[in-house]
Amino acid sequence: MLLQKKDKLVMIGDSITDCGRKKPEGEGRTDALGNGYVSLVNSFLQSFYPERGIRVVNMGISGNTVRDLNARWQTDVIDQKPDWLSIMIGINDVWRQYDLPQVVEKHVYIEEYEQTLRDLVERTKPSLKGLILMTPFYIEPNASDLMRAAMDQYGQVVRKVAADHQAVFVDTQQAFAPVLEHIYPATLAWDRVHPNMTGHMTLAKAFLNAIGFSWNGDK
Amino acid sequence: MLLQKKDKLVMIGDSITDCGRKKPEGEGRTDALGNGYVSLVNSFLQSFYPERGIRVVNMGISGNTVRDLNARWQTDVIDQKPDWLSIMIGINDVWRQYDLPQVVEKHVYIEEYEQTLRDLVERTKPSLKGLILMTPFYIEPNASDLMRAAMDQYGQVVRKVAADHQAVFVDTQQAFAPVLEHIYPATLAWDRVHPNMTGHMTLAKAFLNAIGFSWNGDK
Amino acid sequence: MLLQKKDKLVMIGDSITDCGRKKPEGEGRTDALGNGYVSLVNSFLQSFYPERGIRVVNMGISGNTVRDLNARWQTDVIDQKPDWLSIMIGINDVWRQYDLPQVVEKHVYIEEYEQTLRDLVERTKPSLKGLILMTPFYIEPNASDLMRAAMDQYGQVVRKVAADHQAVFVDTQQAFAPVLEHIYPATLAWDRVHPNMTGHMTLAKAFLNAIGFSWNGDK
Amino acid sequence: MLLQKKDKLVMIGDSITDCGRKKPEGEGRTDALGNGYVSLVNSFLQSFYPERGIRVVNMGISGNTVRDLNARWQTDVIDQKPDWLSIMIGINDVWRQYDLPQVVEKHVYIEEYEQTLRDLVERTKPSLKGLILMTPFYIEPNASDLMRAAMDQYGQVVRKVAADHQAVFVDTQQAFAPVLEHIYPATLAWDRVHPNMTGHMTLAKAFLNAIGFSWNGDK
Amino acid sequence: MLLQKKDKLVMIGDSITDCGRKKPEGEGRTDALGNGYVSLVNSFLQSFYPERGIRVVNMGISGNTVRDLNARWQTDVIDQKPDWLSIMIGINDVWRQYDLPQVVEKHVYIEEYEQTLRDLVERTKPSLKGLILMTPFYIEPNASDLMRAAMDQYGQVVRKVAADHQAVFVDTQQAFAPVLEHIYPATLAWDRVHPNMTGHMTLAKAFLNAIGFSWNGDK
Amino acid sequence: MLLQKKDKLVMIGDSITDCGRKKPEGEGRTDALGNGYVSLVNSFLQSFYPERGIRVVNMGISGNTVRDLNARWQTDVIDQKPDWLSIMIGINDVWRQYDLPQVVEKHVYIEEYEQTLRDLVERTKPSLKGLILMTPFYIEPNASDLMRAAMDQYGQVVRKVAADHQAVFVDTQQAFAPVLEHIYPATLAWDRVHPNMTGHMTLAKAFLNAIGFSWNGDK
Amino acid sequence: MLLQKKDKLVMIGDSITDCGRKKPEGEGRTDALGNGYVSLVNSFLQSFYPERGIRVVNMGISGNTVRDLNARWQTDVIDQKPDWLSIMIGINDVWRQYDLPQVVEKHVYIEEYEQTLRDLVERTKPSLKGLILMTPFYIEPNASDLMRAAMDQYGQVVRKVAADHQAVFVDTQQAFAPVLEHIYPATLAWDRVHPNMTGHMTLAKAFLNAIGFSWNGDK
Amino acid sequence: MLLQKKDKLVMIGDSITDCGRKKPEGEGRTDALGNGYVSLVNSFLQSFYPERGIRVVNMGISGNTVRDLNARWQTDVIDQKPDWLSIMIGINDVWRQYDLPQVVEKHVYIEEYEQTLRDLVERTKPSLKGLILMTPFYIEPNASDLMRAAMDQYGQVVRKVAADHQAVFVDTQQAFAPVLEHIYPATLAWDRVHPNMTGHMTLAKAFLNAIGFSWNGDK
Repeated sequence: MLLQKKDKLVMIGDSITDCGRKKPEGEGRTDALGNGYVSLVNSFLQSFYPERGIRVVNMGISGNTVRDLNARWQTDVIDQKPDWLSIMIGINDVWRQYDLPQVVEKHVYIEEYEQTLRDLVERTKPSLKGLILMTPFYIEPNASDLMRAAMDQYGQVVRKVAADHQAVFVDTQQAFAPVLEHIYPATLAWDRVHPNMTGHMTLAKAFLNAIGFSWNGDK
Repeated sequence: MLLQKKDKLVMIGDSITDCGRKKPEGEGRTDALGNGYVSLVNSFLQSFYPERGIRVVNMGISGNTVRDLNARWQTDVIDQKPDWLSIMIGINDVWRQYDLPQVVEKHVYIEEYEQTLRDLVERTKPSLKGLILMTPFYIEPNASDLMRAAMDQYGQVVRKVAADHQAVFVDTQQAFAPVLEHIYPATLAWDRVHPNMTGHMTLAKAFLNAIGFSWNGDK
Repeated sequence: MLLQKKDKLVMIGDSITDCGRKKPEGEGRTDALGNGYVSLVNSFLQSFYPERGIRVVNMGISGNTVRDLNARWQTDVIDQKPDWLSIMIGINDVWRQYDLPQVVEKHVYIEEYEQTLRDLVERTKPSLKGLILMTPFYIEPNASDLMRAAMDQYGQVVRKVAADHQAVFVDTQQAFAPVLEHIYPATLAWDRVHPNMTGHMTLAKAFLNAIGFSWNGDK
Repeated sequence: MLLQKKDKLVMIGDSITDCGRKKPEGEGRTDALGNGYVSLVNSFLQSFYPERGIRVVNMGISGNTVRDLNARWQTDVIDQKPDWLSIMIGINDVWRQYDLPQVVEKHVYIEEYEQTLRDLVERTKPSLKGLILMTPFYIEPNASDLMRAAMDQYGQVVRKVAADHQAVFVDTQQAFAPVLEHIYPATLAWDRVHPNMTGHMTLAKAFLNAIGFSWNGDK
Repeated sequence: MLLQKKDKLVMIGDSITDCGRKKPEGEGRTDALGNGYVSLVNSFLQSFYPERGIRVVNMGISGNTVRDLNARWQTDVIDQKPDWLSIMIGINDVWRQYDLPQVVEKHVYIEEYEQTLRDLVERTKPSLKGLILMTPFYIEPNASDLMRAAMDQYGQVVRKVAADHQAVFVDTQQAFAPVLEHIYPATLAWDRVHPNMTGHMTLAKAFLNAIGFSWNGDK
Repeated sequence: MLLQKKDKLVMIGDSITDCGRKKPEGEGRTDALGNGYVSLVNSFLQSFYPERGIRVVNMGISGNTVRDLNARWQTDVIDQKPDWLSIMIGINDVWRQYDLPQVVEKHVYIEEYEQTLRDLVERTKPSLKGLILMTPFYIEPNASDLMRAAMDQYGQVVRKVAADHQAVFVDTQQAFAPVLEHIYPATLAWDRVHPNMTGHMTLAKAFLNAIGFSWNGDK
Repeated sequence: MLLQKKDKLVMIGDSITDCGRKKPEGEGRTDALGNGYVSLVNSFLQSFYPERGIRVVNMGISGNTVRDLNARWQTDVIDQKPDWLSIMIGINDVWRQYDLPQVVEKHVYIEEYEQTLRDLVERTKPSLKGLILMTPFYIEPNASDLMRAAMDQYGQVVRKVAADHQAVFVDTQQAFAPVLEHIYPATLAWDRVHPNMTGHMTLAKAFLNAIGFSWNGDK
Repeated sequence: MLLQKKDKLVMIGDSITDCGRKKPEGEGRTDALGNGYVSLVNSFLQSFYPERGIRVVNMGISGNTVRDLNARWQTDVIDQKPDWLSIMIGINDVWRQYDLPQVVEKHVYIEEYEQTLRDLVERTKPSLKGLILMTPFYIEPNASDLMRAAMDQYGQVVRKVAADHQAVFVDTQQAFAPVLEHIYPATLAWDRVHPNMTGHMTLAKAFLNAIGFSWNGDK
C-alpha cells in the first residue's frame, strides 16, 4: 500500500467529500471526518493498517467548484503540509449549468476547469509524496443524458491531467458502472449526486484499489 | 460468500448494533440501518455483490441484554422470517454489574445468559439458512481488568453455543486484538464499549470474513 | 368551466398532492392546502372565478400508494361528500420497486394498481358531478429509463380507467414534455419526483385546461 | 410577451415582494424566490415560456419604504444589471402613519415618496429594456377608509410617474376590486396587507397581463 | 363594587378571553390568567381591593363559538361553582362566515347563537350571585362593513338576553367607539379582532365600570 | 393630567422597567413596551386619553444600576429628546450587596448612587417639560429586614433629589404597603423584586396618580 | 454510621428532594439522583464509604404535599422495599396557603398534615431498618414572618411524630440558622425555598450528622 | 483552615474544573461555578464557614492544556488578583497523545509541561497568600496502563514543582485509590476522565483536607 508510517493524507473536494466534517479542519474524534467516503477510507486505513498511524484530514466543502478550491488552496492544502493529497472536484462545476442555467456567474466551463485544476496540481505536486486525482461523477447510467455526458467530459480532463503529472488516477464514474447494472440510480443517490452508504463504499473501494490497499493488510 | 440472491439477513443486538437505526424496523433509505457495523456490512454487500439483492434488516436496540432479546424475539426475529440471523449480545448483561453494582435487578448473570441464548438459538435455528453468533467485547487490552475478564467468560459461552449448534462464530474480542496493539483503547471507543468508525469497520471485517466475503466479489 | 357555484372539489393523492397540507382535513386559512398544485388550482379558482365560491379540499398524504387510498377511502373521500373528485396516484406504487427493491411488501404491482383504482372509481363515480383522473409521472425525459417506462405503463392504466368511466383525463407526463425540452429534469424536481413551483404550475395548468378554465374567466 | 430570451427581471419591493426569499439575493433553487407573487410570476414564465430561459430575481425586503429602496439601490438594483425591473413600494410608507402614528420618523409622506420614486426611476430607466411600476394597495373595499384613501393617493403618484416615463403600469388596487366583490377582505389578507395565495395570484395575473403574457404561450 | 370578599369570578369566552391562559384551568401564579383583559381585571381587583381576596378564573379557549361553550359548559362552568360568571362569545360565530365562507359547518348563525346563549344563561343564572354578559365586537369603525354589521346584530342578541335575565350588560363595541375616533383600527388590533394592550385595557375598563369598580377603592 | 398632546414620555430603569421590551428602542407594536408597568401606563394613556396621541418609550434594561444608566445616558435618554422622563433605579444597586456580597465591584453604595442620580437629573432636567422620579422598592413588609432597610435609605435619596429639583415624586414602596397588608409578599413577587401583574398594576397606579391621571379622562 | 453494607436508602419529598431526578425512579448513572441534597448525600456515602455499596434512590416529586405522598406511597415507597427511608415534606402544604390563598383546594392544613404523616409512618416503619424524618423549612430568619411561623408549626409536628416513633430526626430549619446569620436569605434561595448548592450542602450536612457520618469514615 | 475572611480563591484548570461554569468569569448565582469539585468546595466553604465570606472563582476551560493556561494567564489569573490560587492541569496534555496520536501539534510533552508550569508558578507565587497544586489523574487502577503510567509521570512533575515552591500539594490520583478498590473505574467516570458526583466529591475532599478544612468548622 502506497501510504507509509505517519504519512498525512489530505482529501479535498465538494459535498461528496465534506459529508458534514468538522470545520475548519476535518480531523479529530467521532464525526470529524464526516460520514462519507473519507471516513470510510480512514477507518479502512486505521483498522487494516493500525501500525502505520496514517493521518487523514478531510478538507471538503459543500458546493465547491474548482474555482472555490483555488480560492482556499493556500490555507486548506499548502498550509496543511500533506504527504498525500486527493482531489475530487467538478460536480458543481457541471451541475450549476443544469440546475441554475440562468445564473451564469456560477457556471465553471470546461476550459476554466482544466486550467484551474492544472494550476493547482502544478503548484502542489512537487511538495507531495503522491497525488490522487478522482474524477467527478453522475450516478446516471444513461450516457446520453445531458448532464452525464458533460460530466464524462470533465472526467476526461481529470484523466489527462493525471496522466500528464503521473498522479494516481481514480475513475469514479467507472466504479459505479457495475453497481448501476443492478441498482437503480436514484437508490444509490436520491439526486443522482449525493450517494448513500453503498455509494460511498463504492468510492472508497475505488480509492483504496488505486493506492494498493489489501484486504489482508500488506506483507 | 454464504448469502445468496435475495437472502434476508436480520442482525439483532444492543446499542453497538442499533447505532440510531430506524424504528420499529431498521430498513429503508438513508440512515435506516444506523451508522455502525450493520450499515457497513450492508454497504459492502450492496457494493461488492449488487447482483445478489441481499436484504439487511437491523433489529438492534440500545441497552438490551439477552433478557430483552428474549422478550421481543417473536416480533423482532421470528415474524421477520429471516434467512440469515446474526446475534451480538451480552455487553449490557456484564456492564450493569459494573456500572450499576447496586441495581441488581438489571444484572444478567452468566447462567441466565447462557440458558437464554441457548433457548433463542434452539427456537430459531431450524427455520434459518444460517446463524451467525458474535461474541460481546470490551475494548480493553488488559485481560485482568475485571470487566474484560467477565466479558471474556460471556464470549466463551457464545463460542460453546455456536459450536453446539454449528453456527458461524465471530470472535469480536479477538478481532480487536491486533488493532489494540497500535491504537489506545479509549481512541477506538470513548467508553471502551461504543466504537468509532474504525471499531465498527473492525467488527464488519470480522463478520464478513466469517461469511466468506471476498474483496473482489465471489467467483 | 366545469365547476359551478358552491361546488366542492376534493383532490386526493400522494406527496405531490399533500405538500404539507393541514391534517386531518386540508382546508382553511393560510397553508391549509399545502404549497403545491392544489393550492395553485385553488388560488386560480378563487382569483379568476371569485363569484363561484368553489370549495377545494386537499386530502393527499405523502407516501401513499393506491393501496393506502383504498384503506382511507370511506373517511377521506366518501364522507367528504365531494361534488368533484380528482385522483393522482401511482408514483409510490412504482417508486418502491426501484428505491427499495428488496422490500417487496411495499411494492404495488400493476395488476393490483389497476384493480384497486377501478374499485375506487366504481365505488365513487355515481355520487359525483365529475371525476378527474390524473396520471402519475416521472420527471425524466429518457423514455427508456426503467422507472420512467414503468410509470408510463401505470399512466396507461389511468387512461384506460378514465375512458371506461367517462372521467376527465389529465396526462401529467405529457404536460411535462414541452417543459423538459428546455429545462433539465433535476431542476424541475431534485429527485425527479417532487416538483418545484414551476413543476406544480405545469400540473395546475394541465388540470385547469382539462376542466375548461379560462384565463379571462368564463363568459 | 415583452420579456425575451435570457432577459433578467429584477423585482423589488417590501414584504409583499419578499415573502421569505433567500438573502442576500433572491434567486436559486426551491424557495429562493419566496412564496408570493414573484414566485408565481417566475413559475408562469418557466412553465409557459420554458424556451426563453428568463431569469427572475427577487430583491424585496420586508418593511421597506421607498426611503429604504433608495438606500440600497446601487447594490440591490444597479449592480444586478437587470434587463427588466419591477417596483412595488409604498405600503409601509402609508401604514406607519396609521399603525405607529407617534413614531413620525418612520412616516414617508407623499412628497418624499414621489420625489424618491422619481429619482430612482430616472437613475435606472435608461439602462433598462423596460420598467414595470406597480401601485401599492390596501385590501379594503371601503374607499373612504382612511388608510385606503391614503393608499389610493400614493397609487396615483405611481400612475403619474409611470406615465411620465413610459413605464408599464400595474394598478394592483384595481386588480383586487372584482375579487373583493365576492370575498371578504380579511379572507384575502388577515391584516388587509399581506395576501394569501389567492391575493398573490391576483397580483401575478395583473403583472402578467401588463407584460403581455398569454396562457397558451406567445405565437 | 359588586364582588364581595372571597367571591369567585369565572370568565369564559374565546381567544380574546383566553390570551394564552394556563390549561385546563386558568388560575395560579404568573401567566395563568393569560395576558389579556382577564389578567387586567384580576390585577385591578387584587391591587385596588386586596382585602377582598377575590378569586378570578379564566376559562376562555381560542376559536370557540357559543356551540363550543355549550359542549364544555358542565365541566368548565358549572363544576367550577362560580359566584360570578362573565361570558363574551360570538366573534368566531360571525367570523367563520367571512373568513371561511365555504366551510358552512363552522358557521353559527344568529338563531342558533341566540338559542344556545339563552340555554346557557337559563341553566346557570339561578346558582350565581351575578352574571355579566359582554357583547362580541369588531374593531372596525365603518358600521356598514359587512362583518361589523353582522357583529352588531349578535351584540343586540346579547343585549336582549341580558335584559331578559337582569344580567349586568357590557357593550364592548360601544367601549371601543371613542378610542376609534383617534386610533386607526388596525393599530388596536392587527386583524381587527385580537386587541393589543390598549384594546384589552378598554375592555377591562368597560367591564370594571359595569361592576361598580372605583379607582380609589370602595367606601 | 400633566402630559399633553403629542408629548413623548421616556421611562428608564432596570428589569422592573424592561420586562422584555424591544431592543434597542422600546416602542412599536405588540410587545415593544414589555409586559410590566410601562406597558400598563401606555395602555392607560392610549385608552383613556386617545385624543392626546402620547408617545411612550421604554428604555429599561435588566440588571442595570445607576452606574449603568450613567454609561448609556447620552444615547438612551438625551438623544431620545423626551418631553417627560421617568427614572426608577436602585434595586440592583442594593441587591448586589446582598446576593453577591463577595463581588464588591458590582455594589453601588449610597454615596455613588446619590451623586450619580443627581448628575443625571441636573444634566437632563432643563430640557424636559417634566421629570418623574420613582423610588426603588423591595416587596418585604418587615421594615427591619436588612435589604428592605437599605432600600428605604436609597428611596430617601430619591425623595431628596426629587424635592431639590421639583420633580414629580413616586414612592413605590409606599404604594405597595396597603396591598402587603392583605397579600403575602412572595405572592406579589416570587423573589420580592420582580412583581406579577398585580404588582405592576400597583406601580402603574402610583405613577398615574402622580401625573394627575383621571379614570374618566380629564375635563 | 447507621447504614450498613448493601443497605438501600429511599429519599422522598418535594422539589427540594426531586431536583430534576430521573423518572420514574431516581437512580442510575449521571444525573439520575438530581442535583440537590440527595445527590450530595449519595456522593458522600460512595466517596467516604465505598466499601459499603449503599444504594440511594431519589423519589421526590416537585410540588408534592403530604397528600400527594399518600397517593403514591404504595408504588413509590413500599414497592421499593427500602431498608432506610427519609421523608422531607410540608413546604408546599404551607406555601399554597400563602402564594395561592384563594385556591383553597390546594391547601393542606396542619391537622391533615399531621394525620397523613402519622399514617404513612405507621404503615411503613415496621418494615424498615430505620426512618429519618426531616422538617420542612423556610429560608427566612425573621421568625415572625407569617409563612416562617407556619412552617415552624409544621416542623413541630415532624418533631412529635419522630419522637413518637423513635425515628431519626433532622431539624432542617435549625440547620440553616447559623448560615443565615452571615448570608442573606435570598442568596441561599432566590425564593427562600429552593436552595442553591450551599443550601443543599447545609441540608446534606444535617442529614449526615443525624445518621452518624464521619468525615474520616467509620472505625 | 488556611483561607481567611474575605479571601479570594481562584481555581483554574481544564474540563474537570470548568464543568459548565459561567463565562467569562465563573462566579455569581446558581450555576456560575459549574457543577463539579469547584462548586462543591465553594458550598463547603459557604456552608461550614459562612462567617468568612470567602470568594471562589472558577476559571477552568474545557480542553485546556498547560499551554492554554499560559496563553490566558494574564487576564484569567493575574488580573483576577486572587489571594489563593489552585491549579489542576495536565490531563489533556497527556490525553491528546493517546486519543489523537497523529495530531502531534496538540501534544504537550512532559518537558514543555514542566517548564510551563514552573513559569506560571514563578510568575504568580509572590503575589499570593497561598498556592495549591493538584495533580492530574486518570481513573484507571491498572498502573501499567499506558495512559495511567504517563499521567503518573506528569503528577510527579506537579509534586516536584509544589515541593520546590512550598505550595500546598494535592495528589488527586492517590485520592481516588481507596475508592477504586470498591468501585469500577467506568462507574466513577464514563471515560475514566470526567468524574460523576462521587468522583468530584473525592476531589473536593482531597482539596479540603489539604487546606485544613474541618467538618465542624474551625475553632
